Amino acid sequence: MQVAQTSNFGVLGTGVVGQTISSRLIALGYHVRMGARQAGNEKAAAWVKAAGASASEGTYADAANFGSVIFNCTSGSGTLAALGAAKADNLRDKILVDISNPLDFSKGMPPSLFTPTGDSLAEQIQRAYPSTRVVKALNTITASVMVEPTRVGGGEHDVFVCGNDAAAKAQVAALLRDGFGWKTVHDFGDITGARALEGYVLFWVRAWATLGTAEFNLRLVR
Amino acid sequence: MQVAQTSNFGVLGTGVVGQTISSRLIALGYHVRMGARQAGNEKAAAWVKAAGASASEGTYADAANFGSVIFNCTSGSGTLAALGAAKADNLRDKILVDISNPLDFSKGMPPSLFTPTGDSLAEQIQRAYPSTRVVKALNTITASVMVEPTRVGGGEHDVFVCGNDAAAKAQVAALLRDGFGWKTVHDFGDITGARALEGYVLFWVRAWATLGTAEFNLRLVR
Repeated sequence: MQVAQTSNFGVLGTGVVGQTISSRLIALGYHVRMGARQAGNEKAAAWVKAAGASASEGTYADAANFGSVIFNCTSGSGTLAALGAAKADNLRDKILVDISNPLDFSKGMPPSLFTPTGDSLAEQIQRAYPSTRVVKALNTITASVMVEPTRVGGGEHDVFVCGNDAAAKAQVAALLRDGFGWKTVHDFGDITGARALEGYVLFWVRAWATLGTAEFNLRLVR
Repeated sequence: MQVAQTSNFGVLGTGVVGQTISSRLIALGYHVRMGARQAGNEKAAAWVKAAGASASEGTYADAANFGSVIFNCTSGSGTLAALGAAKADNLRDKILVDISNPLDFSKGMPPSLFTPTGDSLAEQIQRAYPSTRVVKALNTITASVMVEPTRVGGGEHDVFVCGNDAAAKAQVAALLRDGFGWKTVHDFGDITGARALEGYVLFWVRAWATLGTAEFNLRLVR
């Protein structure tokens, strides 16, 4: 598969999303380094122990340096700080798959976006790291379904990518299809498509409350 | 059907959405008055001529006064002015189905929302007219599909309502199901659900560009 252009992935974040993505990449035969604020993070160390010889952990900078492709699985509110700690040199020219969402829960439910209208977190990242090939993806789905679409609706539902670098998008789309099992990957254009994908998350949160489960997704029908 | 509690509808707006909704209501056997900034609006007059004896037109105030249920089919940027012209007395205690979207195209594509994050146009309407029973609905779909869901995907896709008045929501949901033919009407809770439904429209615009047609919709799959 096309994504085998690399065998080393860096994953920023030790939460459910980071662990789910990392474990799936290990299962696909890749090497994964999970990054946290500090090396020796308890959750990262436990994950490494369970994941085996292809797994390692360290700081955000360690993970970013290790990966040819980097997944940002930090919470939206911590993303820019995490990338700063990862260091621009370790992000230069690399593919950064941004799964984060700029959700502000400070006023309770429903959350709002902390990015102003007409902007998105992925665009903020792209502006801060101009040579990094940012691809927004997977932020519209709960973690378990990201890597196992057949958990809902027989896998007949959709995922989206956007970004300014066509080759980077194609590589991520190939990983989603061939690695994670997605049948339908829509190309939502350049990085401004992240406004659509992040705005959708407000809808997602309400649908989650309505349906009573996070294990759902949308299918576009024509 | 439950919506037969009323037989008179007011429709604010003479564009494609207003004409589509109005014509469908006429076909269902109701009386409809279409409202515009001024009585005698050219598009409204042409619609009345085509729609027959149950159709009439006038000012926004005329339409609001006539209807027991009122559809807001004005553009988002003109909505609050149109409701002001419709006059609070004519909106008091009535159901207002709000189809508008707070889209700002002033900076080109993609549009942004002119409501700040953590708010929505429907909430602004509800705050301005506290006794009016605002129900957000249908703003997530192109006009032709609003009243004929079978135009896409065999009708197997979803529509949403939200609002603070449960009886009003139930009446609108019944009209959507029994009158317009919707199979799945999700209740997105109180009027703050409009943040989700209006935020979704940024996603809709991108999907429209990607799919190359406005005749699509989403289905939530579990």
